[in-house]
Amino acid sequence: MMIKFNIEDGDSVVVDVGKDETVLDAAKRSGVVIDAPCGGNGTCGKCRVKLVSGKLDGEKPKYIEENAFNEGWRLACAHKPSGDVEIFVPKSANAFQSRIRVTDFSGAREKAVFDDVRAALKELGFTGDCGVETVNVELTAPSLDDALADRERAARSIAGQTGIDEDKIKFSLYALRRLPLMLREHNFRTECVLRLEKDGSRTVIDVRNAGKMLPGLAIDIGTTTVSMLLVDLATGLPVASASGGNAQIRYGADVINRIIESTKKDGIKKLREAIIEECIYPLIKRICSMAGIESEEIYRIAITGNTTMAHLLLAVAPEYLRLEPYVPAFFNADEFSAGDIGLPVNPCAGVVIAPAIGSYVGGDITAGVLAADFYRKENFSLFIDLGTNGELVFGNSEFLFSCACSAGPAFEGGEISCGMRATTGAIEKCSINKETGDPDFSIIGETGVKPAGICGSGLIDIIGELFRCGIINAKGKYLEGGRRVIKDESGGVGFIIVFADESETGQDIVLTESDIDNFIRAKGAIFSAIRTMLAIVDFSIDTIEEVYVAGGIGSGIDIDHAIMIGMFPKLPKEKFRYIGNSSLSGAYAMLTSCAAVKKVSEIAGGMTYLELSSHPSYMDEFVAACFLPHTDSGLFA
Amino acid sequence: MMIKFNIEDGDSVVVDVGKDETVLDAAKRSGVVIDAPCGGNGTCGKCRVKLVSGKLDGEKPKYIEENAFNEGWRLACAHKPSGDVEIFVPKSANAFQSRIRVTDFSGAREKAVFDDVRAALKELGFTGDCGVETVNVELTAPSLDDALADRERAARSIAGQTGIDEDKIKFSLYALRRLPLMLREHNFRTECVLRLEKDGSRTVIDVRNAGKMLPGLAIDIGTTTVSMLLVDLATGLPVASASGGNAQIRYGADVINRIIESTKKDGIKKLREAIIEECIYPLIKRICSMAGIESEEIYRIAITGNTTMAHLLLAVAPEYLRLEPYVPAFFNADEFSAGDIGLPVNPCAGVVIAPAIGSYVGGDITAGVLAADFYRKENFSLFIDLGTNGELVFGNSEFLFSCACSAGPAFEGGEISCGMRATTGAIEKCSINKETGDPDFSIIGETGVKPAGICGSGLIDIIGELFRCGIINAKGKYLEGGRRVIKDESGGVGFIIVFADESETGQDIVLTESDIDNFIRAKGAIFSAIRTMLAIVDFSIDTIEEVYVAGGIGSGIDIDHAIMIGMFPKLPKEKFRYIGNSSLSGAYAMLTSCAAVKKVSEIAGGMTYLELSSHPSYMDEFVAACFLPHTDSGLFA
Repeated sequence: MMIKFNIEDGDSVVVDVGKDETVLDAAKRSGVVIDAPCGGNGTCGKCRVKLVSGKLDGEKPKYIEENAFNEGWRLACAHKPSGDVEIFVPKSANAFQSRIRVTDFSGAREKAVFDDVRAALKELGFTGDCGVETVNVELTAPSLDDALADRERAARSIAGQTGIDEDKIKFSLYALRRLPLMLREHNFRTECVLRLEKDGSRTVIDVRNAGKMLPGLAIDIGTTTVSMLLVDLATGLPVASASGGNAQIRYGADVINRIIESTKKDGIKKLREAIIEECIYPLIKRICSMAGIESEEIYRIAITGNTTMAHLLLAVAPEYLRLEPYVPAFFNADEFSAGDIGLPVNPCAGVVIAPAIGSYVGGDITAGVLAADFYRKENFSLFIDLGTNGELVFGNSEFLFSCACSAGPAFEGGEISCGMRATTGAIEKCSINKETGDPDFSIIGETGVKPAGICGSGLIDIIGELFRCGIINAKGKYLEGGRRVIKDESGGVGFIIVFADESETGQDIVLTESDIDNFIRAKGAIFSAIRTMLAIVDFSIDTIEEVYVAGGIGSGIDIDHAIMIGMFPKLPKEKFRYIGNSSLSGAYAMLTSCAAVKKVSEIAGGMTYLELSSHPSYMDEFVAACFLPHTDSGLFA
Repeated sequence: MMIKFNIEDGDSVVVDVGKDETVLDAAKRSGVVIDAPCGGNGTCGKCRVKLVSGKLDGEKPKYIEENAFNEGWRLACAHKPSGDVEIFVPKSANAFQSRIRVTDFSGAREKAVFDDVRAALKELGFTGDCGVETVNVELTAPSLDDALADRERAARSIAGQTGIDEDKIKFSLYALRRLPLMLREHNFRTECVLRLEKDGSRTVIDVRNAGKMLPGLAIDIGTTTVSMLLVDLATGLPVASASGGNAQIRYGADVINRIIESTKKDGIKKLREAIIEECIYPLIKRICSMAGIESEEIYRIAITGNTTMAHLLLAVAPEYLRLEPYVPAFFNADEFSAGDIGLPVNPCAGVVIAPAIGSYVGGDITAGVLAADFYRKENFSLFIDLGTNGELVFGNSEFLFSCACSAGPAFEGGEISCGMRATTGAIEKCSINKETGDPDFSIIGETGVKPAGICGSGLIDIIGELFRCGIINAKGKYLEGGRRVIKDESGGVGFIIVFADESETGQDIVLTESDIDNFIRAKGAIFSAIRTMLAIVDFSIDTIEEVYVAGGIGSGIDIDHAIMIGMFPKLPKEKFRYIGNSSLSGAYAMLTSCAAVKKVSEIAGGMTYLELSSHPSYMDEFVAACFLPHTDSGLFA
């Protein structure tokens, strides 16, 4: 049996389908993206697709109205083909995953930010020592008088060219299996890909045709989003990027819920599969197809992610991260081979994972600090990573303190009804006319692009302007009516930023009180964490000389507005610098440079972790910060 | 559906059976041994079993006579259960595999031979440096003030106790996954198993309760038989042994046929599965159950085998071994982890494989030479390994030459109608009364044990005596009749050694002309190889000062008879020494000592391989040697 998926605004995909597979199962297996936040249990109703032809078995789910069911609408998770079928996949079926799509460097402005980071890394010498190299092997064919085995013949040639002892050249099983065939197919001329080992020896990890790209992969595993950068290790240049939602989200939006899930039966296995098989596999497939390479040609991987993500990636129990005294199973993951972890690349590709320093300050931060580059400077700097978890680092070349707070996904557009990542169609800047109450906004993308949603920086602007114009109060509640303020059936109040006829989606873009509330909690978590951390280490806000803002919030962030709503401390605007996805930049550095790996390790070793949750004043600070701008408005005067 | 197997002289085994599985499939999966030399194609008729209750689907095969079919006899490969069934498995259904069972050191006399080898190895210092060690880890429990991660906490303790730098202590994924659970289950007191790396660093490969055995496994993969020895690495003492038939035999009795099979679609995969999943898996299961351990507790493996076996184990194409110029893909296999190869033990157990020196002189010989211990001596020695492939090594501490010939499995009892390994019930010595023509024999095992078959040494005696008494001629044909000489329906002539009423099996033990022919070819291959090799290196037979005889032929070998029939050169009897399964002894040495691994590598590096097949005189020598004793009887005068 086959399913033909007709994807709205996309290609058709034809998939074989097994007897007991649902439409959702077949879609997952073939990389057709259909949201299923409930995990395919039939309890969320998000995976609506339409039957075009053929027959699906399964009863009408409660989420499909009678007439919609008659028109062919079904839930992908609840129906199984009973023969060849054709299925229409509307845009709405992957709205969530599309919206969080871009945290990589595929947008022009994010790319510019990354290019600056990359230039800085290069200047510091973090380049060109990626631990993978190629050697051309041109051999005399064997004869009865010279019956040396292929492996020894190739090793001798490599030894001769590199000056390495022959007995320090090993072959991976993958390379050994390819060797006799490649040699005879190519007249005993081929190229060996070598992995440099810590003891100076080399492992031949592939045997291939000469003159090809030398691909490596940087991966940032965020709680909400996974991003990848494919890099030619020979040049250090990025070749392709891709990102997508972290499928673990069905087990909970934040790390705490996922840790709880991991303690259930098969929990670790399911969470590991969600990240590896449902996110990393299809993203690697996509990025390789963009670059025109096979995934087995990826020879090195660097991974950054928070402590929980690192544990789940390796299927190590994260259980004790959330139980006092909050102890991870590991800070430093040793360098594994991709095959050990089950990544679908060259099985002996070395996998470096950025070290954590605490249960809630992970490798995304230690690698991000390398990319932010303030760890070398005398100035006291504050590093703020705005993700699902917010993390802070404060210090200079003498010391570094760090802590974490749970901010939620609002900065990345999550938990906001019209939220989206900082990509094409996102409202990233906004001002509101105090007289008319009408917004004026700018949208990411080419001229003429219609607004599709609101990204983090747009949210800051809109909430700041609504507050400045007196449309909302300090608690984030709408004060008065008007043609833009609407109520939905359940009594929720919202403000229409864009009317349906002007939007990309054909629906109003609305900011609800609930959205504002979510955002205020996020910014309150960040600000209160800054205050608490500085208090613990006995520094005042005035001592901060530079502020590095990282995360998917977008380069359009307006610092004045962010200060106005009490998200960032009141400091001169020029002290702030947006550095983009510093976790992915850090992964890039670790991918292309073993010296960078070592430096991240040193940074981690010198960083002190502060556990805010065990600090008595943190909760009071948080409550006080959940106002616009703050209960102590003097802090922002 | 279930099958209950009632095994004659054995236990009952109950197995779940899938819809499309034959009785043979279910038996294979569950370790119930049923011979299927044809691979389950229904073309050999050996897998006869009897239906006791229930129903089997499938037509009457030609191998089952009408009335036997009515009695319930079926072919395990040709019938599928259509519900719960009960199946009787007669002894005859696993006669071949039972007969070749023992090549390990479980027999008292083979064990004595091995104990001598082991004592000699110990004297040479090949002991106690197995590359695996344990460290007791007793940690202070973490607290809010001391939230060091588990891995770093354990590494610090190991570093403190061993003096190794903390950053030179790595954790395997398997160990890392066990660490947080083991620590909390056992109050932060546990034992770490460490693998020593070449660069002096350590990898923690397991976390476990203290005070247990430290198991390692020596494996000899023969073309016909696979043998294993489980060793406590802490003491170097053997704990259990097991052996069984090499399931690849269904793809051919010799390496050439298996190499040809490997070039067919999925051939390498099938041959690899036959050795790993059908032989090594169940043998490991059996040996672990004998020793009362879990297979994941095996921490090191040493493997010996001929070049083809090594290629197939690693799934490396052996294709070019049999094509001029006969070049292996590798001589030296690097040290892999068990997980890389798919062995069901601790995934980071180091696997050392003895190096080959040519297409037909493999790691069984290089490791065997270590065990034979003549490589250090001034005396010119000849080493003869009597296996399916016969291999020879000639030399002393100054030089070593080696070559191979295809002897077939006759020395191990294969291709001989009543052949068996040198184990309980085997006729191992025989003399014949020239007057009466009646044999007098001794049998391996306790007093009163009945004869079950003939092992290699018994064959030499019987053929020697038949020839001495004039019952057979120089071509191995029976000269006259008598009550012991019989003809079967197809005209084949045989000599009854043991009448049915005196045998263990209840059937006559008969030596046929075809058996004698097979044996003469085997001994002819060995003798002609000795002659040709010595001629090539310009030495005469008289220069041989010692002869080491290795292989499963058994300690009962009678040198006078072996010389009389022209198998061994005419040299004084006291120059010969039987050294047993030297390949397994060599694997044992490599398992328990890294110095032994290094020494085998040196031996291999100094050994010169002679390709007899490319030598013009070899075929003439072989033809001349296929007589009793030889066409040139002066050689044995």
